[in-house]
This record gives sequence, C-alpha cells and structure tokens, in this order.
Amino acid sequence: MINRLEPATRHYDEKLQLLLKASAKIFAEKGFHHTSVRDIARATKMSLSGLYYYFTTKEELLYLIQERCFVTLLQRWEQVADPQLDARARIRVFAENHLSFFLHNMPEMKVMAHEDESLTGDFQDKIRVLRRRYVKVIVDLIGQLPGPDGGRAIDLRVATFALFGMMNWIYTWYQPKRDLPFPQLIEQMLRIYFFGLLKPGNVDENWFTSTPSSNHKAAFSLWQNIS
Amino acid sequence: MINRLEPATRHYDEKLQLLLKASAKIFAEKGFHHTSVRDIARATKMSLSGLYYYFTTKEELLYLIQERCFVTLLQRWEQVADPQLDARARIRVFAENHLSFFLHNMPEMKVMAHEDESLTGDFQDKIRVLRRRYVKVIVDLIGQLPGPDGGRAIDLRVATFALFGMMNWIYTWYQPKRDLPFPQLIEQMLRIYFFGLLKPGNVDENWFTSTPSSNHKAAFSLWQNIS
Repeated sequence: MINRLEPATRHYDEKLQLLLKASAKIFAEKGFHHTSVRDIARATKMSLSGLYYYFTTKEELLYLIQERCFVTLLQRWEQVADPQLDARARIRVFAENHLSFFLHNMPEMKVMAHEDESLTGDFQDKIRVLRRRYVKVIVDLIGQLPGPDGGRAIDLRVATFALFGMMNWIYTWYQPKRDLPFPQLIEQMLRIYFFGLLKPGNVDENWFTSTPSSNHKAAFSLWQNIS
Repeated sequence: MINRLEPATRHYDEKLQLLLKASAKIFAEKGFHHTSVRDIARATKMSLSGLYYYFTTKEELLYLIQERCFVTLLQRWEQVADPQLDARARIRVFAENHLSFFLHNMPEMKVMAHEDESLTGDFQDKIRVLRRRYVKVIVDLIGQLPGPDGGRAIDLRVATFALFGMMNWIYTWYQPKRDLPFPQLIEQMLRIYFFGLLKPGNVDENWFTSTPSSNHKAAFSLWQNIS
C-alpha cells in the first residue's frame, strides 16, 4: 500500500514517527499529565534538545499524535472509499479501516480516548475540526441507508456512536492472543451492527462476500515504515 | 426504591457519599494523578484531617468510588432481575440498569473507564473481582440466547463487549439537552444490538412492550440520597 501514499507522506520524517509512537505508548501507560519530557527522552534515547527540535511543549507532542491519527485515518479512508459501492458496503469499508487502525495502534487510540480534553486553544480547535470531518463521513453514510418504511427508525447520532462505541471500546478488553483475529472480529461486529445479535448468522445475507474485498486483510500500522 | 435497599445501605454515611460524588467529579475533570487531596478539600469544603477520616490515601478514595459503582450496579441488578423472564428480556433489563446508571453518573463512569489502571495491589484485586462478577452476569445471559441453527454465531466476548462498548461510549458524546432521553436511547441501542441497524423497526417485533416494564422510567442516581 505504501506506493499509494502521497510523496509528502513517504518522506515523512522517520525519526518524528518513532518519537510519536514512543510518546503515545508512554502517554497511554502513564497518562499525559503524569508523563514528563524526561520520560520521553529516556524512552526514545534522545536528548532534551533533540526532542525540542520536534515540539516546543508536551502539549504540542500530544497534538502531533492526535493529528497524525486522524490524518492517517482520513487518508486511508480516501484511498479505499469506493463511490460505486452502496452505503452499507461503504460503512463496512469505513469500519474495517477504523478497527484495523485501532487494533494496530492501541496506545494511540487509548491516548485519543483519554487525552481528548488535555489539549487547549488552537491545538484543541484543530483536532476538533479533524474529528468532525472524520465523524461526518460515517454520519453521511448511515444517513444514506434505506430506512424501514422509507424513514429512519434510529437516531443518526445513536447509530453513529453505537458503531464507534462498539469498535473503540476494544482497547479496554481485546487481547490479541485470546480474542478473534481482525477479519473475524470486524465481521462479527458488523453482523451485530447491521443484523443484530439475534439473527447474526442469517445465511441469506451473503453481504460479507457480495462486496469487493477491501483492506480487511491488509493489517496496517499507523507507523507503517517502522513497525 | 429506597425502601428495598438493605438497612446497611440506608445508613450509609451521607457525608462519605457527598465526598465520593465530589471526588469523582474532580477526578473526571482533572484526572486522578493530576488531582491533589487539597483539590478535594477545596471542592468539598472539608479540612484535610476531616478528609483523612474517610480514607488514608488518594488511591483508597479512588477505590471507594469504583467499589461503590460496582456494588450499586450489582445491587440494583439483583433487585430488578426476574428469573421468570427469558434471556433476551433479562439482557434488556440488565442494559437498562447499566445505561441508566451511566447517564446519571457520567463522572463516575468516566473515572471507571480512565482510572481503571490507577489502582494497585489489593485495591486493584478487589475491583477486578467485582468487575468480573458484574461482567459474568451478562456473559451468562448472552450465552443463554438461542443461536441460529442451535449454535452460537457470535463469539461470546465480542457479543458482550460490543454491548458494553455501545453503552459505555456515551460519556464521550452524549449531551442531555441535544440527545434522546434515556427511554428512547436505551430502546434504540437495544434495537440495534438485537435486530441490527438495517431492520431496527421491524413492527412484528413487539419486544419492547412484551416484557414487564422495569426500571427504565425510574431514573436513578448512584447517590440517590443526595442528588
């Protein structure tokens, strides 16, 4: 997939990526406020002056992690989104992209969930814009689903955040060695989401094989050059 | 409902309840590690020595909040659980109990989600036992659902944590003035969970009115004596 990325992304400073990855891990373990720049220096084996080449405050470092997450999610979505597919198939592709990202970047996702309010001012504003752009993608797709009786039976916000909640909660329980691997995990979550727990295995619904295979097999890491 | 509580609970120290409620709010806002006992003293207008009558360390205070949440959830569940109902109806009652609790105690739930790993040693062990007991209730209920072809199409852990994720994520998005009130919110979440987003409004499924009304109208607070 790497050759499909834009040139700017290909040349993205590898050292910054290493730094962001290591910092996300520490923030996830210790919490943002509980982590010092010295902790980051120790983990990355970089000097304080070396670190301050990449950011001026610890808050900027947190911002860079969150920004990179949303930008990556949005870039991947734009690469795999196929306007030929119907809304249901596109929701599936969106969810595959989101959950795959999550599974391979659990520290980053924990940081995004827990340190959402640790950003202030401009940093906070910029992340809010990115988050809104990202959420709007799925809100629009769900809004295009045909509803029963031509109407919508489920509130759009409930439908949207039920899906995000189902997927995002994995950072609290998912154990790679114990739980289902990604392809089955996302398939089962989407079966619940689309068809419900009571009829998840309806064999007449060959929805899982009826749309072109997308990126659900291609496990990816946010930091794909280095992990 | 208050008269159905056990005598020990009725006499639960009201001042401790106020303290736990105020502390949960501060922990939710500032994070556990970022909050000092002085912050708690300021918010509760209690002296430091007055505070240390109730706990010996800040960690014990966090433990008391988490313990109180799980004990309350389990007590309420034992009050409303009806063995005459089938598994589906009991899952509905469990989810109503859980989400109602959540909606009325968002700071506590944020603290439980974010500060899960802030407890150590005995405190951590005791909370793990309570959490396991609580999760086991719903795991057992889901396991009793009739599966397609007499088998289970969905992994039990995925089914369990998909439901918790859907409900628990509300602390990140739910706005009381903007979003659906509790009865519609839980009804729509359960429709998605049981029947799926694609057929949530199947009119043949009169499941929502076919079981006895339970506590979904009785909004309750964890700190019911004081809020």
